Amino acid sequence: MAGNKRGKQSFVLPQLPVITAWASVAGKKESEGPLAHTFDIVSQDTYFGQKTWEQAEKQMQKMALDKVIEKSGLHQNQIGLVYSGDLLNQCIGSSFTLRNTNIPHVGLYGACSTMALGLLTASMAVSGGFSDRVIALTSSHFASSERQYRFPLGYGGQRTPTAQWTVTGAGAALLCSAGTGPRIDSCTIGTVTDLGIKDANNMGASMAPAAYATIRAHMEDMKRTPDDFDLIVTGDLGQLGKEVLMELARRDGLYLGGRIADCGTMVFDTATQDVHAGGSGCGCSAITLCGELLNKLNSGKLRQILFCGTGALLSPTSTQQGLPIPGVCHAVSITGGSD
Amino acid sequence: MAGNKRGKQSFVLPQLPVITAWASVAGKKESEGPLAHTFDIVSQDTYFGQKTWEQAEKQMQKMALDKVIEKSGLHQNQIGLVYSGDLLNQCIGSSFTLRNTNIPHVGLYGACSTMALGLLTASMAVSGGFSDRVIALTSSHFASSERQYRFPLGYGGQRTPTAQWTVTGAGAALLCSAGTGPRIDSCTIGTVTDLGIKDANNMGASMAPAAYATIRAHMEDMKRTPDDFDLIVTGDLGQLGKEVLMELARRDGLYLGGRIADCGTMVFDTATQDVHAGGSGCGCSAITLCGELLNKLNSGKLRQILFCGTGALLSPTSTQQGLPIPGVCHAVSITGGSD
Repeated sequence: MAGNKRGKQSFVLPQLPVITAWASVAGKKESEGPLAHTFDIVSQDTYFGQKTWEQAEKQMQKMALDKVIEKSGLHQNQIGLVYSGDLLNQCIGSSFTLRNTNIPHVGLYGACSTMALGLLTASMAVSGGFSDRVIALTSSHFASSERQYRFPLGYGGQRTPTAQWTVTGAGAALLCSAGTGPRIDSCTIGTVTDLGIKDANNMGASMAPAAYATIRAHMEDMKRTPDDFDLIVTGDLGQLGKEVLMELARRDGLYLGGRIADCGTMVFDTATQDVHAGGSGCGCSAITLCGELLNKLNSGKLRQILFCGTGALLSPTSTQQGLPIPGVCHAVSITGGSD
Repeated sequence: MAGNKRGKQSFVLPQLPVITAWASVAGKKESEGPLAHTFDIVSQDTYFGQKTWEQAEKQMQKMALDKVIEKSGLHQNQIGLVYSGDLLNQCIGSSFTLRNTNIPHVGLYGACSTMALGLLTASMAVSGGFSDRVIALTSSHFASSERQYRFPLGYGGQRTPTAQWTVTGAGAALLCSAGTGPRIDSCTIGTVTDLGIKDANNMGASMAPAAYATIRAHMEDMKRTPDDFDLIVTGDLGQLGKEVLMELARRDGLYLGGRIADCGTMVFDTATQDVHAGGSGCGCSAITLCGELLNKLNSGKLRQILFCGTGALLSPTSTQQGLPIPGVCHAVSITGGSD
């Protein structure tokens, strides 16, 4: 059965998992951005009816989970497995979403790469026949992230030009062994890359080398070129990280051309929404995928994309101890539903 | 390919992954306990030569990773994938272990169930042919856990009788598609169970319902009885949690008899080592498995075990906000190498 592995980091899926349903939940600021029309649910209440921001994040995940199940026409007890994770300490957004649902759960930690990591691991479960009707789920919340990683919002700290704005949102995608919708054909598992960036306000730069390493590995392992894709979509490098990625590719002689898009610069209008370098957080790539991207893949407006979730694997403790920020990127190749 | 799923939560492995090598690293207190002779590496230095406890934990993981590769006779660049996670915020023990190793990495979060969760997910990757030579890795450290979850050690807080002692240790197991050693034949993925326990000093009680739910699901899904196993080994319920598990089974009419053992009561001598209810932490079940249990499975002293990793999915934030402690348990059925 070792025939599905390709090269050092990649694998193909003998039976292509079909993304039969997807759902997104977004906050107020996201609902004022360019992708507003693609979200299933938006809330003007930052607390989503809860008492704390952490519980608000749990609530968003729950809403995304319920919505994707509703859109699929299934019942909750027909879901075989949920892969999920988030940025909160000990991933409590995910744990509290799944509690007492009776749905088997594998907890992931991939920082902002979690949506891609969820699709990748869910693909193995579905294609290998270990489970069916598997959901990849994640979230982030601006206020819970700021409090945990940086400063309490009430402190009013000034943000650097390189800072990114954590997206308040949750996304869910349902993978099945059969059905109609976009399909996952191959994945590339990331390695943890650290080039010594220590500035926790410049996560784009810390993740860009990982993004480039994974994109290059995918092309080599799968014997593909960037031209095989309509879009190579990175998770949340932001404007600065995207420029670093383009520069790394240029120096290495890999022509990415106009193929690169970044969810961090798609989800917000960086010129008018005061988000500095762009969006970030697990929710950033999750709501961009589970709306804009999967909609366009499903309708045939996009034929093939490489969805590259990027994560900065820092903690406040590692930063306070003077350590650099390791980055990771996982890539999932998704083909349009109309083929 | 949907033929590998069994029941609601379980799956069988069409090609049994072989655990061809395993390694354990343990701290001073663990080296004074009943399993001392089974560890590959012990250190009397709590810092493992590092400047901080968090980096000490990273170092233990690195030592376990290097040791399992050495014992396997492979080189690092032959390892296809590492599944790992730990208790530190944002899993920095795992991320910093893997950085710049060039080994593909999937980050997990399962609290103290991580060793079982790693074996379970690695089994899918190996048996499905998505990767080969896959390592499951995890760690915990008494001092980093106390600081993060409870009080700084210097505070000298008194511990409750129900408290458990976080094991300082790391374990690694290498799964291959061929070779000799104990083999994984089936797994049961846990659901997140919450019966309302809110006492962060009584994690055994919060995890016991999850342990029972998963053990029962394994028996039902796989049409097995406890008599099919020499041992049903829970992760770290401790003495109190183990009693709760036995009581839940008794009320439900499932006779567990003398089959139940708990890593939390195996790794320490609870009568003399002042650990109160027993050991805990990701390292607890990891070093018990990657020493005592796999050694005995390999030599034929154990024929078949159900290894049930248990995790308390709390965070200090959720506890401070008055929320209960969800529990999870993942089960891996391992058959002896001599069959």
